[in-house]
Amino acid sequence: MSEQLTIIMAQINPIVGDVEGNTALIIESAKQAKMEHQADIVVFPEMTLTGYPPEDLLFREALYQQVESALSIICEQVTDTVLVIGYPMMDELGDRFNMAAWIEEGQIQASYIKQNLPNYSVFDEKRYFSSGQQPCVVEYKGVKFGLLICEDIWKLSPADQSVKAGADILLNLNASPFSQEKHQDRIRVVKRRVEEVKRPVIYVNQVGGQDELMFDGGSFATCAEGEVQVQGSEFKTDLVPVKILKQADAVVVLPGEKADLLHDEARVYEALVMGVKDYVQKNGFKGVLLGLSGGIDSALTLAIAVDALGAEQVEAVMMPFKYTADISIEDAEKEAQALGVYYHSVPIEPIYDAYESALSRRFEGYEEDVTEENMQARIRGVLLMSISNKTGKLVLATSNKSEVAVGYSTLYGDMVGGFSPLKDVPKTLVYRLAEYRNTISSVIPERVITRAPSAELRPDQKDQDSLPDYDVLDNIIKAFVKEDKSPTQIVDEFGYDKQEVLRITKMVSRNEYKRRQAAPGVKISPRAFGRDRRYPITSRYAEEQ
Amino acid sequence: MSEQLTIIMAQINPIVGDVEGNTALIIESAKQAKMEHQADIVVFPEMTLTGYPPEDLLFREALYQQVESALSIICEQVTDTVLVIGYPMMDELGDRFNMAAWIEEGQIQASYIKQNLPNYSVFDEKRYFSSGQQPCVVEYKGVKFGLLICEDIWKLSPADQSVKAGADILLNLNASPFSQEKHQDRIRVVKRRVEEVKRPVIYVNQVGGQDELMFDGGSFATCAEGEVQVQGSEFKTDLVPVKILKQADAVVVLPGEKADLLHDEARVYEALVMGVKDYVQKNGFKGVLLGLSGGIDSALTLAIAVDALGAEQVEAVMMPFKYTADISIEDAEKEAQALGVYYHSVPIEPIYDAYESALSRRFEGYEEDVTEENMQARIRGVLLMSISNKTGKLVLATSNKSEVAVGYSTLYGDMVGGFSPLKDVPKTLVYRLAEYRNTISSVIPERVITRAPSAELRPDQKDQDSLPDYDVLDNIIKAFVKEDKSPTQIVDEFGYDKQEVLRITKMVSRNEYKRRQAAPGVKISPRAFGRDRRYPITSRYAEEQ
Repeated sequence: MSEQLTIIMAQINPIVGDVEGNTALIIESAKQAKMEHQADIVVFPEMTLTGYPPEDLLFREALYQQVESALSIICEQVTDTVLVIGYPMMDELGDRFNMAAWIEEGQIQASYIKQNLPNYSVFDEKRYFSSGQQPCVVEYKGVKFGLLICEDIWKLSPADQSVKAGADILLNLNASPFSQEKHQDRIRVVKRRVEEVKRPVIYVNQVGGQDELMFDGGSFATCAEGEVQVQGSEFKTDLVPVKILKQADAVVVLPGEKADLLHDEARVYEALVMGVKDYVQKNGFKGVLLGLSGGIDSALTLAIAVDALGAEQVEAVMMPFKYTADISIEDAEKEAQALGVYYHSVPIEPIYDAYESALSRRFEGYEEDVTEENMQARIRGVLLMSISNKTGKLVLATSNKSEVAVGYSTLYGDMVGGFSPLKDVPKTLVYRLAEYRNTISSVIPERVITRAPSAELRPDQKDQDSLPDYDVLDNIIKAFVKEDKSPTQIVDEFGYDKQEVLRITKMVSRNEYKRRQAAPGVKISPRAFGRDRRYPITSRYAEEQ
Repeated sequence: MSEQLTIIMAQINPIVGDVEGNTALIIESAKQAKMEHQADIVVFPEMTLTGYPPEDLLFREALYQQVESALSIICEQVTDTVLVIGYPMMDELGDRFNMAAWIEEGQIQASYIKQNLPNYSVFDEKRYFSSGQQPCVVEYKGVKFGLLICEDIWKLSPADQSVKAGADILLNLNASPFSQEKHQDRIRVVKRRVEEVKRPVIYVNQVGGQDELMFDGGSFATCAEGEVQVQGSEFKTDLVPVKILKQADAVVVLPGEKADLLHDEARVYEALVMGVKDYVQKNGFKGVLLGLSGGIDSALTLAIAVDALGAEQVEAVMMPFKYTADISIEDAEKEAQALGVYYHSVPIEPIYDAYESALSRRFEGYEEDVTEENMQARIRGVLLMSISNKTGKLVLATSNKSEVAVGYSTLYGDMVGGFSPLKDVPKTLVYRLAEYRNTISSVIPERVITRAPSAELRPDQKDQDSLPDYDVLDNIIKAFVKEDKSPTQIVDEFGYDKQEVLRITKMVSRNEYKRRQAAPGVKISPRAFGRDRRYPITSRYAEEQ
């Protein structure tokens, strides 16, 4: 029987490309882990040194030189604790690998190459990396540790190999991006693997937002029967201790801290808050700015921004026009007051009139149409961008996924912005999130939630003049976009009118050009617009059975 | 000694997703090939039925049903000629393959699965497809034909396999996208392969624009010694006959038509014209529209648009402000006249004043800065988009690659547009293309080419106030973006000032957010911005050795 060992799951938030900063973060975390937890081993996430995903930065040779010197610095500075860290490596032939190193007493004692390279959804690892073939098992104080990286645990072979090479316990380094059901998926997959190989697994995930991707942490450790013994919190950086003991021939994971897991709306809300916070802070903006319309999307976006950055970093602008209802102005004011943000109003009528008059000759003989509606949205876009340029604040776009899907938004108008928090949030979920946020403190007036949604770009306009009810719309979008179902399959599943389903699915296909020019947003679904769903703009594909 | 056979290289222009339309095009081409050339065999490009690349349409099950019925229709309708066509296939397990079929007497007599799946640059084939393992050799009238698909010919193994399985000649189906040196690369690679396997190759490439990608045709056939015997034209659909003869044990490719190849500027110019034409026509726009500034970028874009679509489909708008020089207005008018397009002027001063006054309270205490310059560009953007919305014409953006690289352009301003023809054309090449176009007919006033470039957004502004000379800038961009060189390597290569190189390369890195919201453009370089170069927006990566 060997001594008890303390392994730290280092849920850190590295910044992509910041090898120097990430190195400092690793060293600091290692020292803290030693001091606070008497750590024996600290396990970091996948690609710790570069952050994940570095994308085409991986083609730059200089990156590998930076990684090399970072490894030397770490070896030099942390000699009293074992570190397991992730990084990319390039060999003499120019082949690249996704690696994990076991650093002990100032030396890389062993290293592992990732075997399963994901190349689906948001992942392009086969663009960059060659696969490893071998397990990596390291013995330390009588325990044999098998190293695995992320996708490796989703298939049997790497874990099985590792166990056949003698591993008592598996250390899995992850950069696993968030989506709504992802945590449950991870637990399910790891349990299955544990049942197959009968070894405990320590699953370490990164935290933080990187453009569209949110890493939600939630690191965990299971015993050899698959039960979760230690659970790290979600969306928070943390050093989570796992105590293990070798008894007879097996390694036992002792029960430890178990963070409460978030549920449903709370989990999505935290992802959105982290997305805004990290995009703004990692990119060095002096706060954010958004157009407040009195509608629910901008109200929710405002609450998220304030929760992410604090009220003093958030500016809200009402830009009323003749179609703006009085209650919209009242409600916008109330929201701004409730959240304590800087709020002001810039009426757009004189600008609109100037455009109308400038274009009057060119538009002679044409009827009023959607052009004039888009013009209002675009004037607001220019105003927001001007304030952004003047103040250094980032504009947040307020479109939701339902609008983004069918193109119910104005390119260069309400789509203006550097980041789009609700881009992957369907309208029906926007309502649920607003209600959830009000349970913490009442910041979104009830009327904003209950009144019929309207873009207020023409008299008495309602969203449902041109779109089906949002619950219907969101079902169609989910089936068509996430599940790749055909219109016929959607009609069969829900019993909706076929012409309506065809109309909506065609709108989705036709509006790819708008989405291609949209700001990045927070991916919360298993299939978000952006790098996750790569559709051609030019396409005559149609499923009209 | 067998009879002479006529093989047609069918350089067609399919439309992505238009399985029905592409099927009709295949059948029509087959009939024409039979009638005009007494074709024995017609070889089509890779993925003929779906167009290339269909991207995530490949995840839709209904696509495969459409492909199945298209194959049945083709088998039914073309029975007197052998067809070799490309298409995607999905098996019972849900695995997908990139296929080629040999269709003879109304039956798929044999089929081949692509072995080498490109997953670099603009290609994501490992996202979609599983690899084949086997050669496919078909005997027809005494000749054994080996089928290969595109990337297969770039490595030895598939050709070698095919020859070992008895192939006398190789048929290579391609969807090979254009870049400046690509045709030479293809010839070089195929010659090398021919030298290795000592068999003639018939290389059939598709024609047409698909979003960012241009397929330039240029199909060719080599003899067993590697010499090109038949050369199809570039950027034109065509049915190019190749006559072969079996003599003793070898197949001889007889000398045939040899289209003159385009050179340098002419080749790039044709790519740009095709890009605009196909984007506009395949997406069903009623013409195009652009802002004419009197500068060289908009002048060249106008000429391309007219050459692509004809003058009657092109509208040019001058939007002068107080910083617009008189000679800019004169030159813009001259360009419009020379090309015969509808031209009009919309002064922006009253609109600008309306914005200034609307924002005066918010901007109190702030100095005038880049905000006011961007505002002018954005007003022009809104005007163009309004005319676009009213008339159904597509806005062409006029930014060049040098500007796109360093962010010398206004998001939602001059970046507005559905398509951006010059996006991958560096400024120095813009000048050469303008001069080339003037050799055909004089449409760009000499003064536009010789005067110092200026955005005319403030008094006496010149591009070179904030950027190095364009030849220097373009060298830095090429080395940094295309060749992934570090600033130090660039300084070593060119002897430029280190601080200047650092400043420019940082501008490139920092402006990824703008490019992410840019319109697609015509890829002409081996590394274009867009899907070809995938960089994170959030990144602290820097190479400051």
